[in-house]
Amino acid sequence: MAYLNLTSKFNDHLSNVNLMDYAFSISSIHRFLEEAVDEPTGWLYAPLNMTNEETDGILALAREIVENADVLVVIGIGGSYLGARAVKEALSPYFKKHSNGIDVEFVGQNLSGTYIKQLIESLQNRNFYINVISKSGSTLETSIAFRVLRHYTRERYGENCKERIIVTTDSEKGLLKEIADIQGYRQLDIPSNIGGRYSLLTPVGLLPISVAGIDINQLLNGSYQAMIDLNEADLEKNAAYRYAVLRYELYSHGYQVELLASFEPSLVFIHEWWKQLFGESEGKEKKGLFPASVTYPTDLHSLGQFVQEGNPLLFETFLHFKCFEEDYSVPFTELDDDYLNFLSNRTFNDINAISEEGTVLAHAEGGVPIIQIELEKLDAFHVGYLIYFFMKACAISAYLIDVNPFNQPGVEVYKTKITDLLNEETITN
Amino acid sequence: MAYLNLTSKFNDHLSNVNLMDYAFSISSIHRFLEEAVDEPTGWLYAPLNMTNEETDGILALAREIVENADVLVVIGIGGSYLGARAVKEALSPYFKKHSNGIDVEFVGQNLSGTYIKQLIESLQNRNFYINVISKSGSTLETSIAFRVLRHYTRERYGENCKERIIVTTDSEKGLLKEIADIQGYRQLDIPSNIGGRYSLLTPVGLLPISVAGIDINQLLNGSYQAMIDLNEADLEKNAAYRYAVLRYELYSHGYQVELLASFEPSLVFIHEWWKQLFGESEGKEKKGLFPASVTYPTDLHSLGQFVQEGNPLLFETFLHFKCFEEDYSVPFTELDDDYLNFLSNRTFNDINAISEEGTVLAHAEGGVPIIQIELEKLDAFHVGYLIYFFMKACAISAYLIDVNPFNQPGVEVYKTKITDLLNEETITN
Repeated sequence: MAYLNLTSKFNDHLSNVNLMDYAFSISSIHRFLEEAVDEPTGWLYAPLNMTNEETDGILALAREIVENADVLVVIGIGGSYLGARAVKEALSPYFKKHSNGIDVEFVGQNLSGTYIKQLIESLQNRNFYINVISKSGSTLETSIAFRVLRHYTRERYGENCKERIIVTTDSEKGLLKEIADIQGYRQLDIPSNIGGRYSLLTPVGLLPISVAGIDINQLLNGSYQAMIDLNEADLEKNAAYRYAVLRYELYSHGYQVELLASFEPSLVFIHEWWKQLFGESEGKEKKGLFPASVTYPTDLHSLGQFVQEGNPLLFETFLHFKCFEEDYSVPFTELDDDYLNFLSNRTFNDINAISEEGTVLAHAEGGVPIIQIELEKLDAFHVGYLIYFFMKACAISAYLIDVNPFNQPGVEVYKTKITDLLNEETITN
Repeated sequence: MAYLNLTSKFNDHLSNVNLMDYAFSISSIHRFLEEAVDEPTGWLYAPLNMTNEETDGILALAREIVENADVLVVIGIGGSYLGARAVKEALSPYFKKHSNGIDVEFVGQNLSGTYIKQLIESLQNRNFYINVISKSGSTLETSIAFRVLRHYTRERYGENCKERIIVTTDSEKGLLKEIADIQGYRQLDIPSNIGGRYSLLTPVGLLPISVAGIDINQLLNGSYQAMIDLNEADLEKNAAYRYAVLRYELYSHGYQVELLASFEPSLVFIHEWWKQLFGESEGKEKKGLFPASVTYPTDLHSLGQFVQEGNPLLFETFLHFKCFEEDYSVPFTELDDDYLNFLSNRTFNDINAISEEGTVLAHAEGGVPIIQIELEKLDAFHVGYLIYFFMKACAISAYLIDVNPFNQPGVEVYKTKITDLLNEETITN
């Protein structure tokens, strides 16, 4: 019994995809990835390389934060934001605080004056810790937010402020590391050979996720299991490689957009994390599938029309969890004036799954190629498994279209423009 | 001085778009829309047709809810959900309650058992009203959620529950209207000639928005102003028509995705509303631009790479507000160990605007065609203006690609599948 099942429903002209046509190229990429010691592929063995001491250190720090703060403010952007946010949202309650009573807020991922002003106001009567996360230590958005929060932490806690600042940065170099060394802030290391969007299973993701009351040991166990399962060179036995091949096949046939679809609203930031992972890894040299996402049934009453009958440029990847901790039954009513008593022996999750089944049938009938990823339960273990699955599939996908999965040269262009504009205006002023 | 400015930066092969080539077709569509009394075009004059009595009624009801409840639960999906949610999020504080102390929660837009169970639990110690919204009165997701909430309202308030249930539905027909008539629930009317995704400026959007403490008179004033400004047949003078023509021109040149980009995170549900409006209006007969969205700078560290250098299938539409009620200054520090003192005379919103300017330059340099929509201030008036602008532009856009802006035949396919599956399983059980 597999932890993750991958199936597909393709329309006629694709139904005879022969996976075996890819056997050789996939096993070459597999070997290349294994042996690419000069590439930032540390994430491949991150679940193995996290020592018990390191995990215990994070757990102890998380306990300290929960005991001494009402809120943890996480400062980061991109890979230093989306992973932690994704797992936290996926596994947190919808309408109440985390079970340990703490809030986790994110900042530094935007430059809104309204946002940061209201964040600082919201901290006035609450105790807090801050966790600033940046691999390079020089990202503008993160640095500015850290300046504000550091300044405010000093105002609030005076000399004791150092206790409340945790720095997650490169283990060897960078401006943030220098600052932390000099100021004596506690540091968590990001391994040098792991890039931002592949860093979820390092302290980058693990501290905020642990503070949010989520079992990081289970998360790591799930990713460890995936590491074992998905290190199989044989395409037939490796779901991550099959996913990479199926989406490549669709891309080769002219499909330009991959639409990731889920039926559970808490997964919306898993979608966002996935969009960064694939978009930033594949979107270069004028290539790549454009990654977009929908949360159904909400978006069945929105983009659903487009998917069913619009411009046929997309395929859909359904992400489905079979079991959930909680559920709710449709009540029986004597009156039955809404004619729904035929559902009164059913639960919402049950009806939701049927809604997904109907949607897959409808869209397949409309000619949309469909990939389905199914996991047993929405819990830390399976989310950890999924994270590793997507990272492995993404690296393979990028190599299949012959681009480097680990760089992001295009991001530098806007950074340079902004720095130039800021310096220019400062000189003028 | 215009309330909304529309400009564009196109790369070489598009730089000589001659708007006048469209003068005749646009004025024909303009006239057709004016005269199309059999089409559901009531939204064209909705800002005019809302009487003072109707607005005052909504305001009085909103006051009653705020006085007697801690939370308003809004039940709806699609057009009966996204509009209210979009305006509420755009104009609400980030980290605190609305100024009037009430919460507004949404349900019926998903079928998650976890979500509805936790929503009901969150209501245990709070007083609430419910506002169920459905044009047809028979949408499955809405109906099931209404059954649960109605049942719970009776449990909590007994015979008095009727006072706490507000029904927004078609003024003339439908199952929800029948139920409301028989049970004596208070009703707000959706005009028969306004469809779901064009209904924001009717009681569908106005009651929840008003309860959230947002000035609906200003919202309506803004949309009224847009109605006047954008009823100009002359393309040069009509920003909505120019937007429709520019995006059509890009579509004709092979661009397949329109990426709506903003730099203020509170606009994320304006994006979602826009995606529904355009996706459901244009996505039929194998046609249409696929609508996607990004919130920058967050997504500069995500999809930004793809936009800059990836598959060149997209163009960007930047949505920009110039002024905000609140802002925050970068503090000066003696130490300056982060080398950011050169920004210490600047505010976040100022730096955010420069970040937008740099992004536009970078993406234009990367060959991405860019449309810019600029409004003076993020407030109810300008949001009202924007809403009308997009609706008018959307109807014109759909007619330009020769599809009906007001139907959604594809949505029926999945509805039928789900109903069949549910009935089947019920019979089997």
